[in-house]
Amino acid sequence: MSEFDLVIRNGRIATAADVFTGDIGIVDGRIEAMASTLGRGREEIDAAGRTITPGGIDGHIHLEQRLPDGAEIADNFYTGSRSAACGGTTTIIPFAFQDHGASLSQVLADYRESAEGRCFIDYAFHAIITDPTAQVLNQELPALVREGYTSYKLYMTYEGLQLTDRQVLDVLTAMRREQAISMVHAENTEFIEWLTERLVDKGLTAPKYHTKAHPVIGEREATHRAMSMSELVGVPIVLVHVSAREVVEQIDWARARGLAIHAETCPQYLLLTEDAYDVEGFEGAKYICTPPPRTADDQAAIWAALARDVFDIVSSDHSPFRYADPKGKQIAGTSAGFHKVPNGVPGVETRMPLLYSEGVLKGRIDVNQFVRMTSTNVAKLYGLYPRKGAIALGADADLVIWDEDTPVTVTNDRLHHDCDYTPYEGMTLGAWPAITLSRGRPVWRDGALCVDAGHGEFQACERPAVARAPRPTRIPELIQ
Amino acid sequence: MSEFDLVIRNGRIATAADVFTGDIGIVDGRIEAMASTLGRGREEIDAAGRTITPGGIDGHIHLEQRLPDGAEIADNFYTGSRSAACGGTTTIIPFAFQDHGASLSQVLADYRESAEGRCFIDYAFHAIITDPTAQVLNQELPALVREGYTSYKLYMTYEGLQLTDRQVLDVLTAMRREQAISMVHAENTEFIEWLTERLVDKGLTAPKYHTKAHPVIGEREATHRAMSMSELVGVPIVLVHVSAREVVEQIDWARARGLAIHAETCPQYLLLTEDAYDVEGFEGAKYICTPPPRTADDQAAIWAALARDVFDIVSSDHSPFRYADPKGKQIAGTSAGFHKVPNGVPGVETRMPLLYSEGVLKGRIDVNQFVRMTSTNVAKLYGLYPRKGAIALGADADLVIWDEDTPVTVTNDRLHHDCDYTPYEGMTLGAWPAITLSRGRPVWRDGALCVDAGHGEFQACERPAVARAPRPTRIPELIQ
Amino acid sequence: MSEFDLVIRNGRIATAADVFTGDIGIVDGRIEAMASTLGRGREEIDAAGRTITPGGIDGHIHLEQRLPDGAEIADNFYTGSRSAACGGTTTIIPFAFQDHGASLSQVLADYRESAEGRCFIDYAFHAIITDPTAQVLNQELPALVREGYTSYKLYMTYEGLQLTDRQVLDVLTAMRREQAISMVHAENTEFIEWLTERLVDKGLTAPKYHTKAHPVIGEREATHRAMSMSELVGVPIVLVHVSAREVVEQIDWARARGLAIHAETCPQYLLLTEDAYDVEGFEGAKYICTPPPRTADDQAAIWAALARDVFDIVSSDHSPFRYADPKGKQIAGTSAGFHKVPNGVPGVETRMPLLYSEGVLKGRIDVNQFVRMTSTNVAKLYGLYPRKGAIALGADADLVIWDEDTPVTVTNDRLHHDCDYTPYEGMTLGAWPAITLSRGRPVWRDGALCVDAGHGEFQACERPAVARAPRPTRIPELIQ
Amino acid sequence: MSEFDLVIRNGRIATAADVFTGDIGIVDGRIEAMASTLGRGREEIDAAGRTITPGGIDGHIHLEQRLPDGAEIADNFYTGSRSAACGGTTTIIPFAFQDHGASLSQVLADYRESAEGRCFIDYAFHAIITDPTAQVLNQELPALVREGYTSYKLYMTYEGLQLTDRQVLDVLTAMRREQAISMVHAENTEFIEWLTERLVDKGLTAPKYHTKAHPVIGEREATHRAMSMSELVGVPIVLVHVSAREVVEQIDWARARGLAIHAETCPQYLLLTEDAYDVEGFEGAKYICTPPPRTADDQAAIWAALARDVFDIVSSDHSPFRYADPKGKQIAGTSAGFHKVPNGVPGVETRMPLLYSEGVLKGRIDVNQFVRMTSTNVAKLYGLYPRKGAIALGADADLVIWDEDTPVTVTNDRLHHDCDYTPYEGMTLGAWPAITLSRGRPVWRDGALCVDAGHGEFQACERPAVARAPRPTRIPELIQ
Repeated sequence: MSEFDLVIRNGRIATAADVFTGDIGIVDGRIEAMASTLGRGREEIDAAGRTITPGGIDGHIHLEQRLPDGAEIADNFYTGSRSAACGGTTTIIPFAFQDHGASLSQVLADYRESAEGRCFIDYAFHAIITDPTAQVLNQELPALVREGYTSYKLYMTYEGLQLTDRQVLDVLTAMRREQAISMVHAENTEFIEWLTERLVDKGLTAPKYHTKAHPVIGEREATHRAMSMSELVGVPIVLVHVSAREVVEQIDWARARGLAIHAETCPQYLLLTEDAYDVEGFEGAKYICTPPPRTADDQAAIWAALARDVFDIVSSDHSPFRYADPKGKQIAGTSAGFHKVPNGVPGVETRMPLLYSEGVLKGRIDVNQFVRMTSTNVAKLYGLYPRKGAIALGADADLVIWDEDTPVTVTNDRLHHDCDYTPYEGMTLGAWPAITLSRGRPVWRDGALCVDAGHGEFQACERPAVARAPRPTRIPELIQ
Repeated sequence: MSEFDLVIRNGRIATAADVFTGDIGIVDGRIEAMASTLGRGREEIDAAGRTITPGGIDGHIHLEQRLPDGAEIADNFYTGSRSAACGGTTTIIPFAFQDHGASLSQVLADYRESAEGRCFIDYAFHAIITDPTAQVLNQELPALVREGYTSYKLYMTYEGLQLTDRQVLDVLTAMRREQAISMVHAENTEFIEWLTERLVDKGLTAPKYHTKAHPVIGEREATHRAMSMSELVGVPIVLVHVSAREVVEQIDWARARGLAIHAETCPQYLLLTEDAYDVEGFEGAKYICTPPPRTADDQAAIWAALARDVFDIVSSDHSPFRYADPKGKQIAGTSAGFHKVPNGVPGVETRMPLLYSEGVLKGRIDVNQFVRMTSTNVAKLYGLYPRKGAIALGADADLVIWDEDTPVTVTNDRLHHDCDYTPYEGMTLGAWPAITLSRGRPVWRDGALCVDAGHGEFQACERPAVARAPRPTRIPELIQ
Repeated sequence: MSEFDLVIRNGRIATAADVFTGDIGIVDGRIEAMASTLGRGREEIDAAGRTITPGGIDGHIHLEQRLPDGAEIADNFYTGSRSAACGGTTTIIPFAFQDHGASLSQVLADYRESAEGRCFIDYAFHAIITDPTAQVLNQELPALVREGYTSYKLYMTYEGLQLTDRQVLDVLTAMRREQAISMVHAENTEFIEWLTERLVDKGLTAPKYHTKAHPVIGEREATHRAMSMSELVGVPIVLVHVSAREVVEQIDWARARGLAIHAETCPQYLLLTEDAYDVEGFEGAKYICTPPPRTADDQAAIWAALARDVFDIVSSDHSPFRYADPKGKQIAGTSAGFHKVPNGVPGVETRMPLLYSEGVLKGRIDVNQFVRMTSTNVAKLYGLYPRKGAIALGADADLVIWDEDTPVTVTNDRLHHDCDYTPYEGMTLGAWPAITLSRGRPVWRDGALCVDAGHGEFQACERPAVARAPRPTRIPELIQ
Repeated sequence: MSEFDLVIRNGRIATAADVFTGDIGIVDGRIEAMASTLGRGREEIDAAGRTITPGGIDGHIHLEQRLPDGAEIADNFYTGSRSAACGGTTTIIPFAFQDHGASLSQVLADYRESAEGRCFIDYAFHAIITDPTAQVLNQELPALVREGYTSYKLYMTYEGLQLTDRQVLDVLTAMRREQAISMVHAENTEFIEWLTERLVDKGLTAPKYHTKAHPVIGEREATHRAMSMSELVGVPIVLVHVSAREVVEQIDWARARGLAIHAETCPQYLLLTEDAYDVEGFEGAKYICTPPPRTADDQAAIWAALARDVFDIVSSDHSPFRYADPKGKQIAGTSAGFHKVPNGVPGVETRMPLLYSEGVLKGRIDVNQFVRMTSTNVAKLYGLYPRKGAIALGADADLVIWDEDTPVTVTNDRLHHDCDYTPYEGMTLGAWPAITLSRGRPVWRDGALCVDAGHGEFQACERPAVARAPRPTRIPELIQ
């Protein structure tokens, strides 16, 4: 065996299923060898006493995304990927947003061009479909899937984004045909609008009323509806950002029926509650995201569900809007209502440390679950596996070497996004990445970023295995 | 005690809870007395050996209803009420249909005027709301409820009828305020349209494809959604024409949560299956109704649910369209697709005998259940109780004296509707009303109608008890 | 119509389904007539403005019962039936207790003899089977059922009473054969013994530890097991004294499967919680009964279940043991442990007023539900219907005329049992029977008992309708 | 890196989560290295194009076990471990059976001594506890757990084996204290006895009646009860040999509640149905095992549950009794009843090939699931991980290199157990192990066994992680 570019010595290596100790040898950015003792590397890292996990894959992050209402996502590919890298994430899958009337191919080409050379870590794309024309679904989609775009997000809510049920069925049918996968934002948009109007009519527009406008029951209803469409068509879906006990109950129900329902939750549902909104003045706007964090009981339900593997993945849903910014949370001013506030919280940098610290170190999940939810399952669900998501021969050497010895107090200062706050300000975490490697190269080490933008490369996605598996459909045979 | 107008002797009297034997004494159309032996009546009927139940109340019947697509309901108030009377029904609650833009008050006035003097039995009205403007809900509704219109039907499907979820929430909120009640036709309209288009595109337009266009999963989904809206607002609803096992499961789920979900099924779901459609040529069009009869397994599930009181009421959903009629089933010709065929089957005359024969006589339900489902609960649910729906002092003497000795083979000949077929042609029933009394007066006796049109009177409905009961809402307190 | 022995004028008459106003005419103890205005009675009662319900039937009451451990039930047929009568109950169904080795026929004969002439109101018997020998089940049972003993109680717990699962299967099979019905006390006896021993070992013997020894999970488990045996054999059972949310969930589950599960709860689960035990000294012993009252959440669940008709019946489970009595709660002294304290609370007199006041008057159930649960369903379930449980022609004139105008504060002083306390001491109720009639004769009027012991007569029970209905069994066909 | 004892080249390596390609280098029986290309090995195996999985761990196998009724298990440690090895299993965990009154320490010592030197592959032990005295649980257990015996099996049925619920609670409490784990055979023994007696009384004793004596409902009931005891104590259990849909539903219910329920199924529930019994004469006796294979619907439910990871593990429950043997199936002769036939089927050799062929190759599960269920999860659940159950650095080189190119028709001839039949006779499988390695040494190669008995070594088990995790208990705090 020839010399390695890099050898990481003596780490406690955790995969999605196993934990073992040894050296990892890296050549040309890939894991070439693992052994109790490997030969020399041109460079070496001593990981004795440290846990090594696959680098995080964040399957839910909004960067540089054009928004219908003129608000501006705080992070672009440069700052967003930087922030991700500094928090142990080595691959991001941001969204390419289709404006109405736009060609999805063009949209993806545009976003990809925009990202080119500006990312610190690797990236793939989901596309948000807002206008599922026959042209898009029948002409463009097949080629796009071949080109490495195999996951598509649908919104059941938000003006300008929302698809009708018929459109969802159209998209899901195309997904089934192309063996691609859909992410679904499931909230009943009419419940939200109806409640919002009534709140606004009564002048109840403070940020905390956001939670009232987005009730659990609307998420539960839309979840049932989305799963029904998945069942009708016979195609897997990913329910993103699940927030509440009643939604978990629906997922349990669907899975017991054998439906191909995948689910995601986010740190904000594990670590925040609706109480976060209940602050003086406009500060609650910082926490406005959808669905909102729920009650303590819901939070407990989400942790309990995490522990029993209800959630395939934990993503950040990083949607940063600056608080003190007229293109951010204050787009309409601090006297404007919650409904004018852009939805989203930053989180790409904190996702991995939060889950590792609050989940693994506190014994709520084990390290294999952590790996599955933050990396392996993400890679599998979105077609990046086995190049990503694994500490395995031939896989990209995307790795996090954890420092569990130095408690870290989260402050926005030490984060690398371009947002002016973090919802976790002041929280002390038990672990943070000591070193993060992307394709064998340290991108974060000794508390500093150590690659240039442009290190990150586009990753074409395969059709996910779950989308390739044959599945029953309830569409009548003659029109399948 | 003065002399009675009529004494019915020695009947086996069945109420919603009890069965006992004795005489019923009627004065001025009301039940004045019941006793082991009553004094003389000016007229007397010997009911020895016969069961007497309250007259049927059919809470779901379409008569003389204007339809958006130009089809013509085969029955008007005259023929429809005649048919009802001949089948043991003494009160009908047809629908007043609101065209878009129309005043609901005017609509009700019109229908009421139209019915005036033309009904053989008593009648009340539900109104179908298709355009729930603020004018309708806030200005008209309070007065209408006071005037005796306390039940309103909403469609989640059908072009021109369908309300959006927001509109449903508007209506339900008004219902909560007015302590009125809603009937909900729960099918996902987009599922139906989407499937229909695909079927039609493939030329799969024979009547039997109607069942494919209206899948159980669409009924289940809309049921969950309707119940979610009921839960959000905190108001009871009546789920009409429940047809399938999965829908029953949803209802069980909702009730175990304590939700105020009421449910109706119809004879077509108890006695037909989707196999009915599978005949040569266009004849299957006779069975086109929504939801369609389902599988044998669903049928068994509906019977089982009936036996354990899942259904409050059993209605006919009488929606007669003549088969051989260019304003009926053949509105678009026999070569037209299922989707052009008006939806509905006749059934107002057969409902009571079918359920008595197939339910009570075959031991699937007891006679008290029969009374509850066909009469008492209907009266209670729609605010006609205790004037209607009971064999009790002061109640209208609306009664059926059953003949269980003479098997009756159903043929369209012997029915009194103005439709040219019955879905139950050839079926032999174990019982049929021997005598039906409306307010103490025989309307059906010895196989003949024995009142004139005009006997029937308008019945104003009260706010139903279930709508008057306080209920939790999930609408935030500040905007209730 | 001849003159009546008694006419009750102008009452608001409530049956299990209906409410109407009028006169009730009674001849020879039976309801001869009901009318808006009846002719003269030799006696008359003015019930204007008052609600009349059927007299209560208490289907769960222990009187004069021999107990294995030497404790003495405080009430005998004389005092127990007196107490019942004074609280609006007109029929009691106490238990005849089979000692091991005893002939069930002899036991029933003995109890019946003992009751003869000593009851103020009518009575029937359940028999408690503790020794289900072939002799008992095959030789004695058929005759007993013919003689009017059609309900049998089984214990899954209590030393000396408990049947093994095999014995339960034997009994249920005999019940199926004879079309009789079983009441099941469902708690896992081994859970109780195991917990009790551990509590006692640690010296945790204060009365409040009784609740710890009888956990909900033991009731839930035994309920599932009892229902499984009911399902295996294919025979209805009555689950008595259901106390907790998890048990209600099991019942919902079983019924959705179509199983013939009937259920009872008691006032102690509606009005007490485990907090009752948490008093100084030994006073908590007053509340020791099994299952014990549970948490406030369980209490709410029981009320909610009541409102949706989960419970067929509400009984008292009157098992009075005097508190300050060495044959009662203090049989082993106040320093003895909870496990030495006889199980049971008095309640036969308070059941009806409690449920009427806290249930009907507070709007948690309606008066028809009250009638069903306290009377009609009891009569139906145990084969006394239609002689008992109905205000209907030919039925016994067992009636309660309610006084809703005079709040009553419960104190043991005003009760007529022979127990020295009531768990409801100090509670103020909105209603109490003004007059109670048994077979047309006032037994309670103007706050006083007005018949002699001996008025009460033995009532032979029929096979209940639910036990006569055909049912699927999961016993292999060949050995049914 | 020094030279390897063995290098396996170019295999498609499958772990419980990952699949990758490369070489495996083995030193001293352990996996020393994995790399795209490793240096020389003293021996080399070309695995190009072949899948390599961890060697199977069979967590449920009966060998040389003394039985209460004198029947003789066909396999001893020699033949049983031989058969296992030839079918791709590299570790077995047979049972040490405690006779009543016996010291568990002595029993384990005896079985261990008996196995010593006679096994072809590695082995650990579960102990079957039939007599859980305080001596056993309090004195012996702590030491046994320290010595490497951390899993214990409990029977809820079988005369002589069955524990009472109290005994189960005693054992589970000891398990919680020692952080050990229990396997539970959950069937209601009284249901079985009761049905058996009735069958036998009617002369229904042919082998096929075995299925009638062991109904699903008895398995469901005992499962609920076992899970309730697990919940009460707060300790994980493993439900072994789950066979039916209703049991899966119970497991779903329990897990949604957060209970620590682990579950096992076996190939006989995936590949046989009750139809297997329905053969002429006594041949059905070959399939007598408990629970018996169920209906086709149950079989489908078990496969569906497998696909969604309801089952942690798939074991053989190898309990071989020779068919034509007076110490085997014919212990009481062919005219004896099913209830005299020893329970069990052989299966240790076929488990891995059956599941690989019918599961993985037919797309019902993926290869990672296969690895989890047959190896990794077994190792984790029983404390052998990470020495066993993983293809990871430092793990024992227990490996199967699969031959997917040569279909194999199962005949008893080609099996290596000492039983005279296989239930899978004539079935053609798509894959069989080409080479099986135990600690780096081929034990099966080219269709032949290639080690001597004595190669197998005893494996001490650790406390399983799931048993070490903190868990809520419903035992009152004061007596925990």
